[in-house]
Amino acid sequence: MQIAVLLFERMTALDAVGPYEVLSRLPGAETVLVAERPGPVRNEVGSLALLAEASLADVTAPDVLVVPGGPGQAALMDRGPLRDWLRAVDARTSWTASVCTGSLLLAAAGLLTGRRATTRWLAADRLAPLGAVPVDQRVVFDGKYVTAAGVSAGIDMALALAGRIAGETTAQAIQLGHEYDPRPPYAAGSPATAPPAVVAALRDRREAILR
Amino acid sequence: MQIAVLLFERMTALDAVGPYEVLSRLPGAETVLVAERPGPVRNEVGSLALLAEASLADVTAPDVLVVPGGPGQAALMDRGPLRDWLRAVDARTSWTASVCTGSLLLAAAGLLTGRRATTRWLAADRLAPLGAVPVDQRVVFDGKYVTAAGVSAGIDMALALAGRIAGETTAQAIQLGHEYDPRPPYAAGSPATAPPAVVAALRDRREAILR
Repeated sequence: MQIAVLLFERMTALDAVGPYEVLSRLPGAETVLVAERPGPVRNEVGSLALLAEASLADVTAPDVLVVPGGPGQAALMDRGPLRDWLRAVDARTSWTASVCTGSLLLAAAGLLTGRRATTRWLAADRLAPLGAVPVDQRVVFDGKYVTAAGVSAGIDMALALAGRIAGETTAQAIQLGHEYDPRPPYAAGSPATAPPAVVAALRDRREAILR
Repeated sequence: MQIAVLLFERMTALDAVGPYEVLSRLPGAETVLVAERPGPVRNEVGSLALLAEASLADVTAPDVLVVPGGPGQAALMDRGPLRDWLRAVDARTSWTASVCTGSLLLAAAGLLTGRRATTRWLAADRLAPLGAVPVDQRVVFDGKYVTAAGVSAGIDMALALAGRIAGETTAQAIQLGHEYDPRPPYAAGSPATAPPAVVAALRDRREAILR
């Protein structure tokens, strides 16, 4: 079972590494980090690079595709080669997944038309113009498509997907192996629970954050 | 404020990337991935490499040090150059942190002697022989030392540390930016809550998992 995790410049690293960490532990998983060109791919902070070991042309039929998000997504919405690749590999996947604004890339490629999907909360209004049906949930399954909300939601998404692929017991073993028993120090992880001033501050910086 | 995240062969990627993702967003943060040698550093699965951009010699006085864990830790316990570096930089840090079995590296360097600390649950019995005082908590602060339990606990640790460094509001903004409102699909993240058969299966594979 090949699991392809897309990398692109100015991605958010945890969007890719969270699902990678979970899905790479599935029995029989062969995970590949893929980008337009092999080599280091840098995150939006600039101080972290993941190594892509395959180019788009090298990965033609993954069983599972994971598309992360991050500010670099904005520059890729009209990028023909990437869009063509997303469409071509999606035609052969068993599961197509995204984290954060990765769902906007899937939607821009026409893969989420009429489908229920989610993205990071700051970008929620960008799904409908791309043809998807926005759902305010952390993880949204619609057929073989599974989309996650912002950044850390990719871990929840990948565990749920692991359960669908390999069964509950295997997913639970992966969860226990990663000791995923989260205890956030603050109740600030969603706009519904974070202090209003914190939510307002992020909303004010929205355009800068998304680009 | 320089934040150094140590990388080593056969580390667990999320141990490093979880805290990186949080701490790199602190105001004034300059984050550096450091390893014995610059270049790609591979995780224990083998299909993911992070790029170290500095060698140990390049990083002499970080304000914050983060030491991840992973099976590769076992081979480093007696490694003189790394131990010397840990001692030297720890002498200048404001905070020294670890995730998962990274605390065993700190302890082996003599930095946790008599201090309360944690590690991943499967390795909990390895802290006391190294002079630390094991505590069954997800995140343990003792003076400037902060240790986290397995893998994903590094995210909770880093948010708590962000709060100590930059205040609650900044930490909450980082949490909201990463939409860290976890919803694990199973109650399987700790040996206290996971199904007994899942816990037993991991215990049976303990030596293989830790090496």
